Amino acid sequence: MFEKVLIANREEIAVRLIQACTELGIEAVAVYSDADEDAKHVRLADEAYHIGGSKAADSYLDQESLLEAAREAEVDAIHPGYGFLAENESFAANVESSDFEWIGPPSEAMADFGEKTKARKIMERADVPVVPGTTNPVTDPAEIEAFGEEHGYPLAIKADGGGGGRGLKIVHEPNQIESKLKEAIREGEAYFDNPNVYLERFLESPRHIEVQVIADEHGTVRHLGERDCSIQRRQQKLLEEAPAPVLDDETRDELCAAACRGVASAGYVNAGTVEFLYDDSTDGDSDDGDFYFIEVNARIQVEHGVSEELTGIDLVKWQFRVAAGEELSFGQDEVERRGAAMEFRLNAEDPDNDFTPIPGTLSTYNPPRGIGVRVDDGVDEGDAITPFYDSMFGKVIVTGEDRAEAIARGKRALAETAIEGIPTTIPFHQRLLEDEGFLENEHSTTYVEDELLEE
Amino acid sequence: MFEKVLIANREEIAVRLIQACTELGIEAVAVYSDADEDAKHVRLADEAYHIGGSKAADSYLDQESLLEAAREAEVDAIHPGYGFLAENESFAANVESSDFEWIGPPSEAMADFGEKTKARKIMERADVPVVPGTTNPVTDPAEIEAFGEEHGYPLAIKADGGGGGRGLKIVHEPNQIESKLKEAIREGEAYFDNPNVYLERFLESPRHIEVQVIADEHGTVRHLGERDCSIQRRQQKLLEEAPAPVLDDETRDELCAAACRGVASAGYVNAGTVEFLYDDSTDGDSDDGDFYFIEVNARIQVEHGVSEELTGIDLVKWQFRVAAGEELSFGQDEVERRGAAMEFRLNAEDPDNDFTPIPGTLSTYNPPRGIGVRVDDGVDEGDAITPFYDSMFGKVIVTGEDRAEAIARGKRALAETAIEGIPTTIPFHQRLLEDEGFLENEHSTTYVEDELLEE
Repeated sequence: MFEKVLIANREEIAVRLIQACTELGIEAVAVYSDADEDAKHVRLADEAYHIGGSKAADSYLDQESLLEAAREAEVDAIHPGYGFLAENESFAANVESSDFEWIGPPSEAMADFGEKTKARKIMERADVPVVPGTTNPVTDPAEIEAFGEEHGYPLAIKADGGGGGRGLKIVHEPNQIESKLKEAIREGEAYFDNPNVYLERFLESPRHIEVQVIADEHGTVRHLGERDCSIQRRQQKLLEEAPAPVLDDETRDELCAAACRGVASAGYVNAGTVEFLYDDSTDGDSDDGDFYFIEVNARIQVEHGVSEELTGIDLVKWQFRVAAGEELSFGQDEVERRGAAMEFRLNAEDPDNDFTPIPGTLSTYNPPRGIGVRVDDGVDEGDAITPFYDSMFGKVIVTGEDRAEAIARGKRALAETAIEGIPTTIPFHQRLLEDEGFLENEHSTTYVEDELLEE
Repeated sequence: MFEKVLIANREEIAVRLIQACTELGIEAVAVYSDADEDAKHVRLADEAYHIGGSKAADSYLDQESLLEAAREAEVDAIHPGYGFLAENESFAANVESSDFEWIGPPSEAMADFGEKTKARKIMERADVPVVPGTTNPVTDPAEIEAFGEEHGYPLAIKADGGGGGRGLKIVHEPNQIESKLKEAIREGEAYFDNPNVYLERFLESPRHIEVQVIADEHGTVRHLGERDCSIQRRQQKLLEEAPAPVLDDETRDELCAAACRGVASAGYVNAGTVEFLYDDSTDGDSDDGDFYFIEVNARIQVEHGVSEELTGIDLVKWQFRVAAGEELSFGQDEVERRGAAMEFRLNAEDPDNDFTPIPGTLSTYNPPRGIGVRVDDGVDEGDAITPFYDSMFGKVIVTGEDRAEAIARGKRALAETAIEGIPTTIPFHQRLLEDEGFLENEHSTTYVEDELLEE
């Protein structure tokens, strides 16, 4: 096992990684920007190196500063966390070709899955259902019209390098084709330096369901079950839960097997998430059920804790072990999922004011405790939430015997959470936990914007 | 289910019970003494009633004040927690004959198990191994000498009403018999108003292993596995863990089955703990292995959370359900124990100064968080620990895939716990987690006093 690891990240995920190091007996080396000089992840680490200015581009995104810190600290390996450089294949490749081990998927696998059309091809070859669409760049409006006739409207024109809603254009009827095509190409060029676009059938109210996988260097891939992350706003997840309450056991098994098959076929190693859309109104389009691959997140995700709670497996520790060459020691049959878990993201945002990020100081911060409550955070009372980075500063994860108990526990835990100094997403979550559509499990990825925020 | 319940207790267990009420949709009514006017359990409750002065005798032990509060608040039921009146059969009987339901074992079962010799008889009849001893009062030194010749020395002379080391006299050789018998009778009279004493073989270095049971009114008894509570000082538990690392699966099954058999034979209802001594050096004395019944704790125990973590079952909620007449919904086969858990009691005591309780104010209190960490407590930062009650103010419970991970997690969690203003037992736990005898699992109930505190 590694003796010393650089944690190339900040706040919540940096704290989570340092905690794993501590439990594994690994020395954890933190890095920090000007703004993070006294951050919790710095306080908890064994050593800490200043890597630059407060702006992410000057510090957490600065590959050379990070590698310099790694050399100075004489670490064995680098863990990128999530966000920042976690899915940057050039950084991964640079680390791979350095003296340090990369605690993440191989840069090649990241490259494979980073390009959407390539990822689609890999998955199709592995017999994983994908949303009906094209795998080659589309330039001719007539091709789009033919696609629409075959698969129906709405359809999506998507930039090949896109993500987060950018470079995505929805076509509801044929006369929109030409203009939307031009817009998608323009956005692809502007944001991703890539004018290629492709087509997909557009699912209007799908569920976002993803499968947590972990693979070792010896060809073993295991899954830790699925998560439902349909509660989103502007493609940003706000709440995640497991098991996905809409799946029956057969579909669940098919979905998880498909995810393992897909990543195995690409020689994937380490933790990753295979994301799907699920829409049972599309019956018959897919041989394997009503789910369609959308993308692989080649990193640990924010919501990994939900699967840890159900399985009792420490995924982050396995990231370190797998990167050090260890074999996964558990068979798929030994991964037993128990109960139901739900994660509430704590963002420094004002949910009543369009979720505007509001920096400030946590003048009061008393996290919830008691049975079935886990808190992963990057702050203590008195810490500042600065405007430089993502507004998420923590997560409350509750686990119960079933969804009803997790919900009751979530209400209890959120009511106990005392935060002053900044607005948070807690009132949003509390509204959600009283919302009939959510409780009755009738929501989709568009529910928050279409229904909940409209009330 | 009840609509409103009186929580006849304070601090950690009161908070735990209120949290269960909140999750069950029950209104929780707190009570408080002068010293507890602004305590956390009062802050979390839906209503709170003042019941008297700071001394326990004037408030939490005052049956009439508690019943008056229950009548004023118009509750449906009373939960006594642990300590104070939790095992007072007359209080239980008074509640049973009032308009309120008693959330605990029937007063008759409490009476059965409250008297040591009666409890022994019940267990012997149910074919549960007991430490070789007498079930009738002993007054004649010759009888003790005969017992010593048959079973060997040391032997224990025990007051029938005794507990906590009071009224317990160890006889190492025959010439001590007369004086020790007189002392035991005298202490029995002085402390418990009961001059009866009985004999037991005295196990010098046993393990304390107990089985968590829960029974409903319909004759179903389930166990949630065992706990090892051998880390004690002056008969006070300091750390508890599950599974008991010395047991093999066969002995574990026998032990748990014996516990269920014993309480079932006595018509026991609600949560309880059957305590055993385990000593594999006594091979052959027992047909069912190397464990011997010592007593039943007819209440929820401090360490119940350890079993909740392994099983995913909320024991306290089941106390409410069972008291409301519900049937236990899970079969014994469905109680699956996963991983290993360890509980560290946080006491306001100075472990370097003979564990002297030191009251004070928690000027800093930042409880640990992250994966596998549960904190049950009765305090927030700024709260006072007063000299009037037990010094325990919280518990850190860690869970891992196995004992090694639980220990690593315990070290990590205790290191993260920031407390200022009072000394705590944390340094003791930290020493224990580095102690070879404990890590190698070679400790017994005398280990802390004989080995660890002698270092």
